[in-house]
Amino acid sequence: MPRAIVTLTTDFGTSDHFVGTMKGVILGIAPLAQIVDITHEVKPFAIEEAAFTIAQAYRYFPKKAVHVVVVDPGVGSARRPVLIEAAGQYFVGPDNGVFSMICASETHSARHLTNASLFLKKVSQTFHGRDVFAPIAAHLAKGASPAKCGPRVTDLLKNDWFQPQRTSRRVWTGAVLQEDRFGNLITNLTMADFDLLHCRAFEVRIGMQRIQLAVRAYAEAQIGEIFVIEGSSGYIEVCANQAPAATLLGCGVGAPVEVEVW
Amino acid sequence: MPRAIVTLTTDFGTSDHFVGTMKGVILGIAPLAQIVDITHEVKPFAIEEAAFTIAQAYRYFPKKAVHVVVVDPGVGSARRPVLIEAAGQYFVGPDNGVFSMICASETHSARHLTNASLFLKKVSQTFHGRDVFAPIAAHLAKGASPAKCGPRVTDLLKNDWFQPQRTSRRVWTGAVLQEDRFGNLITNLTMADFDLLHCRAFEVRIGMQRIQLAVRAYAEAQIGEIFVIEGSSGYIEVCANQAPAATLLGCGVGAPVEVEVW
Amino acid sequence: MPRAIVTLTTDFGTSDHFVGTMKGVILGIAPLAQIVDITHEVKPFAIEEAAFTIAQAYRYFPKKAVHVVVVDPGVGSARRPVLIEAAGQYFVGPDNGVFSMICASETHSARHLTNASLFLKKVSQTFHGRDVFAPIAAHLAKGASPAKCGPRVTDLLKNDWFQPQRTSRRVWTGAVLQEDRFGNLITNLTMADFDLLHCRAFEVRIGMQRIQLAVRAYAEAQIGEIFVIEGSSGYIEVCANQAPAATLLGCGVGAPVEVEVW
Repeated sequence: MPRAIVTLTTDFGTSDHFVGTMKGVILGIAPLAQIVDITHEVKPFAIEEAAFTIAQAYRYFPKKAVHVVVVDPGVGSARRPVLIEAAGQYFVGPDNGVFSMICASETHSARHLTNASLFLKKVSQTFHGRDVFAPIAAHLAKGASPAKCGPRVTDLLKNDWFQPQRTSRRVWTGAVLQEDRFGNLITNLTMADFDLLHCRAFEVRIGMQRIQLAVRAYAEAQIGEIFVIEGSSGYIEVCANQAPAATLLGCGVGAPVEVEVW
Repeated sequence: MPRAIVTLTTDFGTSDHFVGTMKGVILGIAPLAQIVDITHEVKPFAIEEAAFTIAQAYRYFPKKAVHVVVVDPGVGSARRPVLIEAAGQYFVGPDNGVFSMICASETHSARHLTNASLFLKKVSQTFHGRDVFAPIAAHLAKGASPAKCGPRVTDLLKNDWFQPQRTSRRVWTGAVLQEDRFGNLITNLTMADFDLLHCRAFEVRIGMQRIQLAVRAYAEAQIGEIFVIEGSSGYIEVCANQAPAATLLGCGVGAPVEVEVW
Repeated sequence: MPRAIVTLTTDFGTSDHFVGTMKGVILGIAPLAQIVDITHEVKPFAIEEAAFTIAQAYRYFPKKAVHVVVVDPGVGSARRPVLIEAAGQYFVGPDNGVFSMICASETHSARHLTNASLFLKKVSQTFHGRDVFAPIAAHLAKGASPAKCGPRVTDLLKNDWFQPQRTSRRVWTGAVLQEDRFGNLITNLTMADFDLLHCRAFEVRIGMQRIQLAVRAYAEAQIGEIFVIEGSSGYIEVCANQAPAATLLGCGVGAPVEVEVW
């Protein structure tokens, strides 16, 4: 029997007992589960950051993986707990838009998690990660059918903040979706849409900078030189070789990015 | 055969090789062990913080789980390495009070870890996490009997810093035990003892603030409003909705908290 | 069948999806692999720090463990991906000196990873951790033979920055290799070479300090007193009891250390 994978993406940090407690709950129900941390360092309440993170990670996991995402400022309020099936995998978390990027690119169906017999016996109003989402994920990992978790819903909350806008004939406006640990700025523009390596000419505008250099590998640029590159997820990234572009440009998540292509 | 769980709670951080090294030792002895990190971010030498963390986490783990706690300013000195049995689980670490909160609420017995044949062959004077506690935990995970680890002791070091004091007829004085990543302040007063949601009136005093609002879920309060709530471990927490109460109040771990109930 | 261990040492941090993505790749190929994080907090591009970290950790893992080290400023350039066999274990990463400390102390052989059929189908120019090193490690964990990964090479890039120099008859000059979370300064001088506990007299010079005190356990010193001790890896460490020597001395990684022994 293959060991079912349960991944965790939260804004809980790793200083408190919260994440460990969720793992205890999961292993108590599904002792063979293989638990994988995606990250627990999402900024508190940053739904968009969590949406980006899980959307980059899930496609590298095998079928049947269960992904738990808990960035949940509305815990204890009327927002629904949901299960989404997409790409042969399961996604469990609050219905607050955190799965928007996945739903935009994958055929999917959703369920409202209403079967309280699958939750912990006592459900707190402040920690559904432990009391609702972890046990649901564990039951799915053990083979419970999605239908057992609750009824179908078709009105998921979805956002599209991550879609670039065309603002004139040759110009699109996007934004920085993520700044990684190296200070690379990951935009919401994809190299598949804007083939900057083969177009006649282009300009990427971000902060005070106008960038006309596109490379295939970091090492093609000088140390500290700013350029654009196809990042590992297919997005256009603004980078500097062995230096943090974010610091050099004074830009971070949410910063507007304009691309003009001839 | 179920995979035995070994949890780790330390002040080692995750930048160094220390935690990975302990895991290598555990898996060398018990290849099927399922290792779970509770946290490695306990402040250096903060025994009370570690005591709180493991006391919140253990009850969500299944029977036979082995919990290793290494916050150990006295490593290499006369303080004893111990094994505690409580709640059908095992607790391994230094005898410095780190298991005080668990011992206060669970029937327990303890042993002095003296059987050096279960340690690593060479025991350093600075890293008993790797050389003593990790191998003992792995042997327990593999099914070794506690009796094999060493003789019973009855004089464990126990503290009671976490007990609130009654300071007048209607007033109790407690303290902040932990500040979580969201800036919520977890006190040592429990909602079971002070039923603030159903009493005639109450006031919680902390920092310069007098709080008379108790809610069931964060979302019942305005964004940024300060209130008390029953936290996920049963303690009264001082919180603000989607804002860090710790920053708003200028309070952190150890800050005194007074509750008056009518 | 024992579960093969795959360890990860990177400079990716834990805020992004990178590490989780590598784990998805590994488990997709080798579902039974036991993945262990050594650290992901190596300073960006700090090859020497990664070299030190894996060299301290590997000896505590069982035979057949696969260690992936990805600190890779030259990703996408001509630097080779390599597999090293040493101490009955496997080491996978870029050929940039990151395995220098292991190669200096263990008999070893190396291979150039050229068998692209073992990589992910699409190999990016920016994330070989996911596309090359993780899948190779997973195949090794599943039992693939090293010979299948690529041909033997004998011209590995090796550095010796970690070797102390003899600078006069009684004096050796070394450096701080690592500062741990407690502010202990780990030098590249070993207690086996300089038996400071039993020599007639010695002086360790670092920053503005001259140290003549060597102890066996932290607790032998006064709180805050500076001393040298044999650290858990055999190196001479400059420490203070329950205080950060790094802060007290104003020294960190790379700081020169002189030892004179009579």
